[in-house]
Amino acid sequence: MDFEITTRDGAARRGVIRTPRGAINTPSFMPVGTLGTVKAMSPDELKALGAEIILGNTYHLYLRPGLDVISQLGGLHRFMGWDRPILTDSGGFQVFSLSAFRKISADGVQFKSHIDGSYHFIGPAEAMKIQEVLGSDIAMVFDECIPYPSTHDYAAKSVDVTTEWAKKCKELQNPGQALFGIVQGGMYKDLRKRSTEDLLAMEFDGYAVGGVSVGEPKEEMHEIIYFNAPLLPQEKPRYLMGIGDFVDMLNAVDAGFDMFDCIMPTSNARHGTMFTSFGRVSIKKSGFKYDNGPLDPACGCYTCRNYSRGYLRHLFLAREILSMRLNTLHNLYFYQDFFRQMRHSIEEGSFQRFKDHWYPIFDRCQADQD
Amino acid sequence: MDFEITTRDGAARRGVIRTPRGAINTPSFMPVGTLGTVKAMSPDELKALGAEIILGNTYHLYLRPGLDVISQLGGLHRFMGWDRPILTDSGGFQVFSLSAFRKISADGVQFKSHIDGSYHFIGPAEAMKIQEVLGSDIAMVFDECIPYPSTHDYAAKSVDVTTEWAKKCKELQNPGQALFGIVQGGMYKDLRKRSTEDLLAMEFDGYAVGGVSVGEPKEEMHEIIYFNAPLLPQEKPRYLMGIGDFVDMLNAVDAGFDMFDCIMPTSNARHGTMFTSFGRVSIKKSGFKYDNGPLDPACGCYTCRNYSRGYLRHLFLAREILSMRLNTLHNLYFYQDFFRQMRHSIEEGSFQRFKDHWYPIFDRCQADQD
Repeated sequence: MDFEITTRDGAARRGVIRTPRGAINTPSFMPVGTLGTVKAMSPDELKALGAEIILGNTYHLYLRPGLDVISQLGGLHRFMGWDRPILTDSGGFQVFSLSAFRKISADGVQFKSHIDGSYHFIGPAEAMKIQEVLGSDIAMVFDECIPYPSTHDYAAKSVDVTTEWAKKCKELQNPGQALFGIVQGGMYKDLRKRSTEDLLAMEFDGYAVGGVSVGEPKEEMHEIIYFNAPLLPQEKPRYLMGIGDFVDMLNAVDAGFDMFDCIMPTSNARHGTMFTSFGRVSIKKSGFKYDNGPLDPACGCYTCRNYSRGYLRHLFLAREILSMRLNTLHNLYFYQDFFRQMRHSIEEGSFQRFKDHWYPIFDRCQADQD
Repeated sequence: MDFEITTRDGAARRGVIRTPRGAINTPSFMPVGTLGTVKAMSPDELKALGAEIILGNTYHLYLRPGLDVISQLGGLHRFMGWDRPILTDSGGFQVFSLSAFRKISADGVQFKSHIDGSYHFIGPAEAMKIQEVLGSDIAMVFDECIPYPSTHDYAAKSVDVTTEWAKKCKELQNPGQALFGIVQGGMYKDLRKRSTEDLLAMEFDGYAVGGVSVGEPKEEMHEIIYFNAPLLPQEKPRYLMGIGDFVDMLNAVDAGFDMFDCIMPTSNARHGTMFTSFGRVSIKKSGFKYDNGPLDPACGCYTCRNYSRGYLRHLFLAREILSMRLNTLHNLYFYQDFFRQMRHSIEEGSFQRFKDHWYPIFDRCQADQD
C-alpha cells in the first residue's frame, strides 16, 4: 500500500491510496458491507456509483457465515464478488457495542454472540487471524472502545490495553495486508496524545481515530477531531472511524482526515431518510404524494434520473424492496458525489467555500444517526 | 393489438402479439408487478432477463397508491418506469380472494380493503375506468371468481353474472386498449362451454380462462385446461390466468394456451425456493454451505454467472435484501429462458420432446405454490 498527498488546502488533504486492487482517492467515504453485502446493493451498482473501497465487519462475518465458509469460498472478495479494496474493522467496536456479555483479559475479550448467545473469544491474535482469512486489503488493530462518559482512570487503563493489543497485532501483521493503528483515549486530550505516541512508535501503515461518536456532545467530538488530527503523521492515511454525518466529516476533513465509514447513508435509506443538495428529507413526506419531479433535481443518480418523488414515496409506504434499493442507491451516490466535489474543492483551494456551503445545509440535522 | 400465429406443433402455438409498446412472443410468461413494481426488480433488470410484458393488479393499485396518484403521475407505465406492454387484471380475483367482506349485486361488488378495512365498490364500469387510468395495453373484464368446490347451481348463476359484466365491459372498452374476456364455470364442462360461447359472441381481442388453480386437484385442472382451450377461437390469444407451475404450463401450452402469469417465480425466490434445470431446490440446503459452484450450472443469468451457492445460502440465512434480488432475478430468468426454449421447440416441431424432458423434472413438486 502506498499513499500520496497530491494537494493540500489548509490542513485538508487530497490524496491517493494505491493498493494492488485499485486506487482510493481521498478524502474517501467507505460504504459499509456488514455481512458480505452493502445492504440492498450489488457490487456492480457500487462501482457504478463510484465506491472505490468498502468496509467489512470482522465481528459479523466471523459469526455469520463463519470463517470456515469464507475460507472455503475463497476469501471475502471472491465470496461477495467485489474486486476493489476492502477494509475490515477488527471486531473491537462490535464486541463492545453488540454483545450482551463481555469479559476483558490481557489476551482479549470473551463475549456472547448477539445472534445465538454462544460464547466466543477475540483478542489481537484472533482479530489478525480472522482478517487474514477475510483477506482484506487494509486490516485494523484490535482495540477497546470505551463508553461515554468514562473516568480518566478507566480511559487511561484502556489506552494501555489498546497499546498492548496494537503491539501484538503489529507483530502478527499479515503479509500483503496493510495494518492501521487505532487511537483511543476517550475525550481526554492527554490520553489521546499518549495513545497516539504509543502507536506512532510502532509505524503502522495508517492511523485511525476511534472512540468518537459514542454518545458525546458534538462540540466535544469536534474538539477531539481537531486535537487528534495534527498529532498524526502527515505522510500516512488518517481514518476517522464510524463517522458519516456531513457536519462531522466537513470538520474532520478540515482537520486533516482522509477516510470515513458509516452506515448512515444505507441505514437511513432503508428508513426513508434521504440526503440531498437541500439537506435531509423524508421520502414519506405527504407533499411528495403527487410530485412528478426527481427526489433531488441536482442529483445525477439512477434513482433521480428515472423515478419521481411520488413513486418513491409509494414504494416506501408499500414497503417494496425496490424502495430500499432506489433509496440506498441515491444516498450512497450522494455521499460519493459529495466526496468527489470535496476532493475537487481541495484541488482548487476552495475547500473552505465548499465547507461553508454545505455546513448550514446539514447542521440542523444532528440528532438522528441510526 | 394484432396477433399472428407463426408456427403450430400439434395444438401448441408459436405466435407474436404486436402492440404499440412492443411485441410479445408467445407462449409468454408475464411476471407479476402487484404494486407498480415486480418485487425486488428494477425495470432494467426485467428487460435484461427478457420480460416482454408484465402484469399489474388493478385491485392493489386502486387501493395503493390510489388512482389519483397514478393519474397525476402519468399512468402506470410512466409511474413505474416500464415502457413495454402491461396487462392489468380487472380486480375480480383479488376482490374475491383478499377482501374479508364482499356483497355482490348486479352492478358489481362492495368489499372491504384488506389494508385498512375501508369500503369500496368495483363493478364492470369501475374496473374499466380504473384500467383506463392505469393505461394498460391489455385490460381484462371484471368477473366473478368462484371458490372450489361450488355447486353446479351456484356456478351457473355466476356464469350469468360474469357474462353480463363482460357485456358491460365490452361496451365500455377504452380506446387504444385491448380487452380480453374471461371464461368461468368452475369445474363444470357444460358451464365452461356456455361461458365460452357467451363471450365469443362479444368478440373480444383475446380470451382468458379463469377460475382454475383455486384448490381443485391437478387432474381436474388439467381436464378443464384441455377441455376449454379448443373451444376458444384459433386466431385470438389465449390466456390461462394465475398459472405458473411448470407441469400445468406444459399441459396448457400443449392444449393451445399462449399467455401465463403467476407470482410463483418471484414469491418463491423471496422464500428461498429456486427453479433450476434439475428441478426445485431450496437455497437453504445445508449441502450448499461450502459450495463454490453456481446455483444452476446450465443457467446464464446474472446470479448464476457471478455468485456461488454458498454465498446465496449465506445471504438468504442473513435475510439480506441482495438475497431476494439475486433469487428473484434467477427465477424470473429461468422462467423466461424456459419459455424461450419452449417457443423454439414449437418452431422446430419438437414441443412433445420438450414437454417430455421437463415434465418429470417438475412433476414431483406440485403442492407448494405460494
